[in-house]
Amino acid sequence: MTIALDAMGGDKGPSILVQGAVEAARELGTEIILVGKESLLEEELARVDGKDLPISIKNASQVVEMAESPSDALRKKKDSSVRVAFDLVKEGRAQGVVSAGNSGATLATAMFILGRIKGVRPAIATLVPTLKDPSLIIDVGANVDCKPHHLLQFGIMGSLFVKEFLKKESPKIGLLSIGEEGSKGNQQVKKAYDLLASSNLNFFGNVEGRDVFRGEVDVIVCDGFVGNICLKLSEGLAETVIAMLKNEIEGNWLAIMGYGLAKKAFTRFRKRVDYAEYGGAPLLGVKGTAIICHGSSEPKAVKNAIGVAHNLASLNLADKLEASMSNRKDILRII
Amino acid sequence: MTIALDAMGGDKGPSILVQGAVEAARELGTEIILVGKESLLEEELARVDGKDLPISIKNASQVVEMAESPSDALRKKKDSSVRVAFDLVKEGRAQGVVSAGNSGATLATAMFILGRIKGVRPAIATLVPTLKDPSLIIDVGANVDCKPHHLLQFGIMGSLFVKEFLKKESPKIGLLSIGEEGSKGNQQVKKAYDLLASSNLNFFGNVEGRDVFRGEVDVIVCDGFVGNICLKLSEGLAETVIAMLKNEIEGNWLAIMGYGLAKKAFTRFRKRVDYAEYGGAPLLGVKGTAIICHGSSEPKAVKNAIGVAHNLASLNLADKLEASMSNRKDILRII
Repeated sequence: MTIALDAMGGDKGPSILVQGAVEAARELGTEIILVGKESLLEEELARVDGKDLPISIKNASQVVEMAESPSDALRKKKDSSVRVAFDLVKEGRAQGVVSAGNSGATLATAMFILGRIKGVRPAIATLVPTLKDPSLIIDVGANVDCKPHHLLQFGIMGSLFVKEFLKKESPKIGLLSIGEEGSKGNQQVKKAYDLLASSNLNFFGNVEGRDVFRGEVDVIVCDGFVGNICLKLSEGLAETVIAMLKNEIEGNWLAIMGYGLAKKAFTRFRKRVDYAEYGGAPLLGVKGTAIICHGSSEPKAVKNAIGVAHNLASLNLADKLEASMSNRKDILRII
Repeated sequence: MTIALDAMGGDKGPSILVQGAVEAARELGTEIILVGKESLLEEELARVDGKDLPISIKNASQVVEMAESPSDALRKKKDSSVRVAFDLVKEGRAQGVVSAGNSGATLATAMFILGRIKGVRPAIATLVPTLKDPSLIIDVGANVDCKPHHLLQFGIMGSLFVKEFLKKESPKIGLLSIGEEGSKGNQQVKKAYDLLASSNLNFFGNVEGRDVFRGEVDVIVCDGFVGNICLKLSEGLAETVIAMLKNEIEGNWLAIMGYGLAKKAFTRFRKRVDYAEYGGAPLLGVKGTAIICHGSSEPKAVKNAIGVAHNLASLNLADKLEASMSNRKDILRII
């Protein structure tokens, strides 16, 4: 199994990414192709003593900037690291892509090069910690304007992901809304409720904001605008709680020792909320394996993302998603 | 200043509400009319020794149930406690209403009896704690399907509320979205960005989910679907953090003592996130003063809500909102 790593993307530069690749190759045995400026990557690889690992380099002369428009990147940078990485998958020389670069450009390039499953809106899925097992939130940012049947698609994809990746039979699917009853929510969600309820999924019904971290369902379906806000709100809230706690206990030595432990717990919590810690967020609905990482990913997150890509490619998840979508008409329903 | 309290609404029954009213009358000097079943309320009032306070009772023979449909309640229960409370304001016998009952019914009744400011969509506003001063989130549930110009209206109302109630000159207005640039967001939000940017408000630009608790802006504008999910997510996350922290430090006595302090800090935090602690959430955009409380409000929250109602009525906020809306056309723009 070979994974192509966009070794130029991200806020922190190639050295962090190469280090993550070296850890993945060493610990997980994954074959990796680093994609980017050859001479630079050779240097980085030598620096971290990665010469004897199953890591090769594929040259790409361009880099998509973090703030660049995805359509500009697609049109003007045909030799960008992210594009060459997807080309490797298309050509069968790699089985998945990991990128911590411009996520809009990664999304657009994945759709353009690998193609979408017919009729499906690809979505970004992310695992979040809960009081029980992790839950998958889908979508967290690929689709900011959705129709009800797109939410059904997210439910189907999320269900299959949890079944295959987390080995759970019959995952429970919840729809994020503002009340338990199917009659609660905006127009989009009320119609999606009906579609999910009449599908063959194990549909639990609506879940509210307060249920997201309770772990009552395995998959939480929402549009990418709402999902992205929820994800970032959770990160921000964890930080705020730490800061408030610090204020509360200033000057009390016992509390300070307690605070040390509390802070550790919080930091762990915040990291768990940060999807990079789960190894990046898979893009579901394209014909191939693609993992989107935080721009600020540390080597460990890059390593984990490579592990997830390896795992999903081994499971043939993209093919299974396509097969599960191809024989149903309800996902195309236009309301 | 007289406030009408819907003394039958809420999950916990009239005794909690009457107790809150007694505390408000005693501590704040507010005159209060308890609205509901006369004999029952007389008993409750006698029980908490409230006979000598400026509290009177107005009979209402019906009660809107928590799960009842707002339109049914409006049509069928013309002598409900919440309706009679708003009638008292309409007749000039009270200057504001507080209700912890069915919030949809309270909203519908307020709009029907008091009327809406012309062209305006009333919205529920709530103060949340941040690292700096509290921020106002508007809307948190009144409008689940909004047009861009409704978001502009929320910005105008939120700005005036913060200016009058929190005494802040030129409040900073943020628009909740998924990226800093005005080009980021869904269709609704991108258009609202342009409206807000070309208004006379002190528009800061987009804020992301992670900024909600940072306190960079005074007002966070969003539609009621997104706002309600954010509010409830925050409540749920605070609970999850407490539970996770408890797991982390089990069995370590020093940590347990630290945990006691940490838990206190969290409980305080959770209460601050719970809008009842801020004295309920004002409904802005109706021609009068109305405060919506959590169904599970404790006496303290009811007291605070009565205080907020008293304060807003004294400030003539509803009239000021109407005046500020009446001479501008941009709030009616249909895009």
